[in-house]
Amino acid sequence: MTPNDRITRIRKDLEALIGTGSIVDDPAAIARTSRDTWVISVWRGLTRVPQPQPACVVRPRTTAEVAATITYASRERIAVVPYGAGSGVCGAILAPAGSIVLDLGAMCALRAIDQRALLATAEAGMLGSDFEAALAGVGFSTGHFPQSIALSSVGGWVATRAAGQFSTKYGNIEDLFVAFEAVLPSGSIIRTRPVPRAATGPDLRHLFLGAEGTTGVLTEVTFKIHPLPEASERQAIAFASMASGLEALRRILRAGWRPAVLRLYDEIEAGRMFAGVAAEGESLLLVLTEGPATMAAAERVAVEAICQAADGRLLGPAAVESWLEHRNKVPEFEFFLNQGMIVDTIEVAANWDRIDDLYAGVLAAIREVPGLIVASGHSSHSYPIGTNIYFTFAAKPDRPEDMEQLYFRVWDAAMAATLAAGGTISHHHGIGRVRLGWLERELGSAYPVLATLKRALDPLGIMNPGALLPEPD
Amino acid sequence: MTPNDRITRIRKDLEALIGTGSIVDDPAAIARTSRDTWVISVWRGLTRVPQPQPACVVRPRTTAEVAATITYASRERIAVVPYGAGSGVCGAILAPAGSIVLDLGAMCALRAIDQRALLATAEAGMLGSDFEAALAGVGFSTGHFPQSIALSSVGGWVATRAAGQFSTKYGNIEDLFVAFEAVLPSGSIIRTRPVPRAATGPDLRHLFLGAEGTTGVLTEVTFKIHPLPEASERQAIAFASMASGLEALRRILRAGWRPAVLRLYDEIEAGRMFAGVAAEGESLLLVLTEGPATMAAAERVAVEAICQAADGRLLGPAAVESWLEHRNKVPEFEFFLNQGMIVDTIEVAANWDRIDDLYAGVLAAIREVPGLIVASGHSSHSYPIGTNIYFTFAAKPDRPEDMEQLYFRVWDAAMAATLAAGGTISHHHGIGRVRLGWLERELGSAYPVLATLKRALDPLGIMNPGALLPEPD
Repeated sequence: MTPNDRITRIRKDLEALIGTGSIVDDPAAIARTSRDTWVISVWRGLTRVPQPQPACVVRPRTTAEVAATITYASRERIAVVPYGAGSGVCGAILAPAGSIVLDLGAMCALRAIDQRALLATAEAGMLGSDFEAALAGVGFSTGHFPQSIALSSVGGWVATRAAGQFSTKYGNIEDLFVAFEAVLPSGSIIRTRPVPRAATGPDLRHLFLGAEGTTGVLTEVTFKIHPLPEASERQAIAFASMASGLEALRRILRAGWRPAVLRLYDEIEAGRMFAGVAAEGESLLLVLTEGPATMAAAERVAVEAICQAADGRLLGPAAVESWLEHRNKVPEFEFFLNQGMIVDTIEVAANWDRIDDLYAGVLAAIREVPGLIVASGHSSHSYPIGTNIYFTFAAKPDRPEDMEQLYFRVWDAAMAATLAAGGTISHHHGIGRVRLGWLERELGSAYPVLATLKRALDPLGIMNPGALLPEPD
Repeated sequence: MTPNDRITRIRKDLEALIGTGSIVDDPAAIARTSRDTWVISVWRGLTRVPQPQPACVVRPRTTAEVAATITYASRERIAVVPYGAGSGVCGAILAPAGSIVLDLGAMCALRAIDQRALLATAEAGMLGSDFEAALAGVGFSTGHFPQSIALSSVGGWVATRAAGQFSTKYGNIEDLFVAFEAVLPSGSIIRTRPVPRAATGPDLRHLFLGAEGTTGVLTEVTFKIHPLPEASERQAIAFASMASGLEALRRILRAGWRPAVLRLYDEIEAGRMFAGVAAEGESLLLVLTEGPATMAAAERVAVEAICQAADGRLLGPAAVESWLEHRNKVPEFEFFLNQGMIVDTIEVAANWDRIDDLYAGVLAAIREVPGLIVASGHSSHSYPIGTNIYFTFAAKPDRPEDMEQLYFRVWDAAMAATLAAGGTISHHHGIGRVRLGWLERELGSAYPVLATLKRALDPLGIMNPGALLPEPD
């Protein structure tokens, strides 16, 4: 059978199974859902590098259609790539040739908001911003605000272990994710129940959290919600250095405070994004506390005192207001690629005893790569035991054909420096393909367990092969 | 080979492998480590019901000895039962005939306290109270205080998904557990690194959290710690009914407050444990807030206001002080069994929309069992989405030989009523053997995934067979 005959047969089979209404015809839509927003996929698209083509894109309307598709794929040993909204930046979605893409975009209904139990349930393909808007309409929120909120799906949040801008108070997605429905690689449907906490064996949510679609397809998710907070207070603080700002963050968390937002920009980012707010060379910390009025106020006052004791200089709330307004606007990768430059972000994390080494070590390592133009970082998710650093770099090769090589040299330098400092190679973007070669060094002796899990849940290896784990030979 | 020959051979083999120093000879020690504190095991011991005997009890001093023992057991297909400190009350430890018990009691060293990264690492067999004492000695705490703290091991906390009395502020064990070393059923050793948070695939900690020793043996655990809090405030509050007290709890959590302790006793327990504190027929809520002084005070004031708005009556701090002093003293099961009575506890949980039905439904169901003397409950772990109820019952059969039958009738009534109300069958004691027959109804369509996990990690089925999951035929 030629590849084209095979594609025709898969399409026909799926049409017979679930009807033509759920099969995508539009070539642009097929191209769009075959990959995520990894800058390398964008670059290959712009430069017309031939990319693998899926056999078919299915856009199911029901869990039954997802199950039918996967049952078929399992029987025929066809790779299945679940696509949420495609905002991932690590290449977790890069449909192999001849695969079936499951675009969950039509499964976007809000199923329920329980205002007493503080739970909200949605189909996995619902956009994050639609979900939050529905909650806000009745006075609630998840407290989960990834920068991609308007571009990412609620199921994708779980699959990638997302983190939101208010995570220091409300937690990351694993803290908010209560129950789910999923289709296993066998095609069978499982559902869990929302309970506050249970000791009933290993927590099965974690088979899907961060699995990047390699263990099955989430079709419905239930998250915790909370009433919109009574009060919110803001303050911006300047520090002479990133190290003194990080020290202030450490003390805030250590004392037991959990401001919703703690974002510390290094001098380069403070200068670029908040020109004129802090002095030249200073780092800038944005603080937002929220909750009951007395809590938000006590927390803001305490945070200010801790920062002043760490030589911070209070600047007032204006920079926080400005950030709140513009926080989800970022230039698109194409903008830079069209100028022959590649820009990307690398988010890593480490404990407080290692964070200064991590910040300095990664910057030093990537600045040594010839072609690097600029590198900077900020901390956006802090914990009592450590914090993340979200690096941004721009690089420009002498020749466009060296773009990918330059890109991977920067990434390799950052990953090696992160591990050398004792950090973790990903805080919240995941593995996809960009970190694939580094996961074994990250997990060390525990790495084989990941492959054991994958084989157990997906013995035929059909679910999103090539993401998270290498394809078996 | 006779069973005795087999036992002799296993013993000799293990002596050759790890030396006689790590093999337990004392019959009392062997009997003690062959089972946990499940009241049925206690009853069978008291009434001299013949119980299965392990082939051998190994008391390893190092991870290498654990690995050597498991490698041997795997090769010889011998069941391995990891024993921490034996405080479990669900029968998770009940060594099958001919098995090898791995008593981790000699692996009880504190490995490290990192006062900057706020991490502490101990060998898995270290007693909880020793661990906390070591931390307190340098001004720190995990914030994890199960009632069993002096009788349970830090590894056991993870294996059973333990919850402590201060969990509303500090979280349950899954929120505190950062990294581990474990020996897999194959005998290979894996270690993970402590990082603040990562998006590097499924979180492998959850293969051991709550697995009750069925997926391997934890040999070292790392937990989050925090400096001892600056301030602590206490208040006791009386409510006319359990329902009005539960409503106050719901509002406290919903508003965003997280007092370290929120314990609501129903009228029976309030009368029995705090005689004279509340009026006859009233429920009693104990509140303890802690943290920075301004936080602890703001929280105490807010909680008082919420409780008063829910018709609570402030009683002052005395009852909380009294509870703090006596909180870990409970009468032993033997005391009641020797009087022909059986006493046990059943902890379950539900979301706020179901909790009143759960509380009333379980009590009504177990009170219908002939032979039941008294049943009562309290809530001890609250969440924004729900709370637990910790039931206590006493029952007395007409004839001692009907003791077990009566016991299981009460348990079955409680489990059925919990599921009927939409609750979860275990909040923090686990499954063991007492809930074994109910786990499939708890997990429903997701239940087979648990067996898939078990087979993947322990294909020979040697790790703690008969706990959590039924033994394969």
